Amino acid sequence: MSLLEAPLVVASNRGPVTFDRDDLGGLDARRGAGGLVTALIGAMQRVDGLWVAAASSDTDRELAAGLDGGRVDMERFGADYRVRLLDIPPERYDAYYNRISNGILWFVHHYLWDTVRQPIFDDEVDEAWNEYVAVNRRFAEALAEEADRSPTPPAFLVQDYHLTLVPRFLRELRPDAFIAHFSHTAIAGLTYMRILPGRVREGILRGMLGADVLGFHSQMWAENFLMSARSLPGVRADLARSRLSVEGRQVAVRIHPISIDAVGLRQEAAGPEVTALRRELNRWRGDTRLILRVDRLELTKNIVRGFQAYALFLRTHPEWHRRVRFLALLSPSRMDVPDYLTYGEECVAEAQRVNTEFGDEEWQPVEVRVRDDYLGALAAYGISDVLLVNPIYDGMNLVAMEGPLLNRRAGVLVLSRNAGAYWRLGKHALAVNPFDLRETADALYRALEMPREERIRRARGLSRLVLSNPAERWVRTQLEDLERARIRRRTPSPEPAARA
Amino acid sequence: MSLLEAPLVVASNRGPVTFDRDDLGGLDARRGAGGLVTALIGAMQRVDGLWVAAASSDTDRELAAGLDGGRVDMERFGADYRVRLLDIPPERYDAYYNRISNGILWFVHHYLWDTVRQPIFDDEVDEAWNEYVAVNRRFAEALAEEADRSPTPPAFLVQDYHLTLVPRFLRELRPDAFIAHFSHTAIAGLTYMRILPGRVREGILRGMLGADVLGFHSQMWAENFLMSARSLPGVRADLARSRLSVEGRQVAVRIHPISIDAVGLRQEAAGPEVTALRRELNRWRGDTRLILRVDRLELTKNIVRGFQAYALFLRTHPEWHRRVRFLALLSPSRMDVPDYLTYGEECVAEAQRVNTEFGDEEWQPVEVRVRDDYLGALAAYGISDVLLVNPIYDGMNLVAMEGPLLNRRAGVLVLSRNAGAYWRLGKHALAVNPFDLRETADALYRALEMPREERIRRARGLSRLVLSNPAERWVRTQLEDLERARIRRRTPSPEPAARA
Repeated sequence: MSLLEAPLVVASNRGPVTFDRDDLGGLDARRGAGGLVTALIGAMQRVDGLWVAAASSDTDRELAAGLDGGRVDMERFGADYRVRLLDIPPERYDAYYNRISNGILWFVHHYLWDTVRQPIFDDEVDEAWNEYVAVNRRFAEALAEEADRSPTPPAFLVQDYHLTLVPRFLRELRPDAFIAHFSHTAIAGLTYMRILPGRVREGILRGMLGADVLGFHSQMWAENFLMSARSLPGVRADLARSRLSVEGRQVAVRIHPISIDAVGLRQEAAGPEVTALRRELNRWRGDTRLILRVDRLELTKNIVRGFQAYALFLRTHPEWHRRVRFLALLSPSRMDVPDYLTYGEECVAEAQRVNTEFGDEEWQPVEVRVRDDYLGALAAYGISDVLLVNPIYDGMNLVAMEGPLLNRRAGVLVLSRNAGAYWRLGKHALAVNPFDLRETADALYRALEMPREERIRRARGLSRLVLSNPAERWVRTQLEDLERARIRRRTPSPEPAARA
Repeated sequence: MSLLEAPLVVASNRGPVTFDRDDLGGLDARRGAGGLVTALIGAMQRVDGLWVAAASSDTDRELAAGLDGGRVDMERFGADYRVRLLDIPPERYDAYYNRISNGILWFVHHYLWDTVRQPIFDDEVDEAWNEYVAVNRRFAEALAEEADRSPTPPAFLVQDYHLTLVPRFLRELRPDAFIAHFSHTAIAGLTYMRILPGRVREGILRGMLGADVLGFHSQMWAENFLMSARSLPGVRADLARSRLSVEGRQVAVRIHPISIDAVGLRQEAAGPEVTALRRELNRWRGDTRLILRVDRLELTKNIVRGFQAYALFLRTHPEWHRRVRFLALLSPSRMDVPDYLTYGEECVAEAQRVNTEFGDEEWQPVEVRVRDDYLGALAAYGISDVLLVNPIYDGMNLVAMEGPLLNRRAGVLVLSRNAGAYWRLGKHALAVNPFDLRETADALYRALEMPREERIRRARGLSRLVLSNPAERWVRTQLEDLERARIRRRTPSPEPAARA
């Protein structure tokens, strides 16, 4: 049987739904948003799939401890797939999730450290790593159990930097498993990866190499992985074919840019609540042009330099004073982490500096809104003239797709060349180096001054690209990769040439 | 005529000598130290060579403005080569040297930025870059003039990150010139290089590609350059042959680890002044073991983490209290730059913390000496038991060679895996990840506890490696590379395969 029809088993840190109890004690399921969840659930429903994730709410944990090994049939919520929740002890979860995944792996892949002073690896990091290993092993064991319960061999889709060791552990438990791993983040180059303690670096590289197929959002991240992996003893790389060979197995390195759930998003954006919010925003903006940014308050997003570039634009172009506003919708993220809290304060302070330098009673050039406001973002996407997406590094960046999809004013996208989205959308965007204030300021100016025909042409190009790559394709191409790996496994190919 | 016998023209920012006036108005020439100067002067003397450099002292500038285009025959100082000094206006020199070379290129190649906040590229950087371009053009023009005055085509050896554009500019002026460029620094990977403004990044990459041969101290730096260069439009890479093809030309990427002037160093270390200093240090250390570090006070050198690792060692091994001392000889560097001044203060503060936590009236575990003390370093090399060389990134690191060469106690070398020297000396050193305090602390312990036979075996291995690679070889191999390039140029080879 082709793996395209095989049972699908997904593993990710967060599941597609979070369970809660309603007032009467009944079970509620809140579904996560986004292309990944939509695409994977769609695919799973066709094949009676199962999604393994860590329990996150109290109710999750209650279910995880339940009779069927934490399995929940989603039929009672009208869906045709199952969820399996793993109960991870809180301290272990904290080490795995906060300290290793978000405190170290996220930092390394986005080049976030102030290397002269950070990071410092000591015994505590060592102990936290042991917990990361334990959680990854727990996931792998759960996946192996699912393989045993499945009448035909399933296709495993393992997600992201939280679960880099799962492919290898699962391979050890079930040598014949068909395993794909997908990295949604940027991936650091080899020299920067050498910051990690040896066993962490080798652990995640060899962990991922347990898969048959490794997926990345863009060529840069795939290439960085290839170059790091081939530096390990016993690993050979065929760069031309983007394939690695290790322990007699082949590992294909593939690029599959994910997209967004266009249909779902457009439906939400057309609803009465978003319509009302849009009207309200339109009143607020008056007859000014609107520069928008929508981001998590995240170190990678480069929010401070965004305001600095805007200030440089205003300084260079006084003719635009009072004719433009910058709306920054920032959703709080990891606010219990000192680095993030400090950064949030720096963002707000920088916006205030801009307002102090250029604003007056009638015109405040920047408005920052720090809160979770998903519907407000959908509304703002519709009416912005310029969308600024300038992360220092970003695996993909979905804002760069959501904005153009929902925009109604032929808005211009100013896009960092270091976002994965740049490789897909770059030619219709105004590309900027996120560290270059002058280039960013000039792009804002050019976007505001751009003739209508060019704006329309670019905006159409962007939404065409977004629509032409539905999120389902992202799942399908991974399964096709796995199917090719299955066929290849039965017809051994010659060894790739030595390190090319 | 083979290029091995051709006239040699060297270009570097600093020349081999600095000129001054003595009390009577006569000319004095202070020669720089180190393997590079010794090796290049040795090679130049054999072929009546010439060294082009920026004027640095007042007398330099006076000579640069002199009759013969700034050329000074070193015959009057008993040497058989010439120096040509270029007078660069101070503001231009400041932009080229401090702001671009040391403020940006040094930072990018050693991953020094706190990327969330630094760098910020604005119009000032843009203007400074123009000055860097102008200085590089000035050097290239001077080299082209030397080519015209030479009866046979010279071999050009261009040095380091200050002069990355010289190969290309010289190639434009003299398309047939034989040009080698050598990078003495680390080289950043492509993803981090993307921090640079587009025209800076492309400028330095394409500038260097003007050479026939590009030299690096280690495989990591050569590979990073190859991967960055092949990302440029029109550049093709043959990674297996470590060769690039651009504009119909071939560029060989080669690894030539430089070494030190062993003979000269041993002579200096045997002199009466160093002998007296050694005796004094021996009295000071008493019957304790001595851990030594010798560094410029430089962000890359990882001095703070060195003290932190030592503290971790002392915390884990109270049995070593009072039995060991850590001597840090730090020579001030770029102390007018705020980043460096702050870092120097952090280093001293960290050492004080260690002394406060572990020391008492009789035993201060750390001694920091911040001053230029070259002879003191030579003395200390002789009597140390452990030499700590733990840079976060370092093109080569000569301390790792000088120490073992001069050491008389079978001292152990603890060496960062991110120093170019690691690729040459690693197997006889205790290798550490410079960010990993635990690994570094354990290496210090292991070094102190190491049986005498193992110490002797390792120490011999180190000095054998240093002696087996005299600095002259570094020059000769580059000239051999250039000669191969000359022959290849006459017999056009097939195009390398597409991006492999």
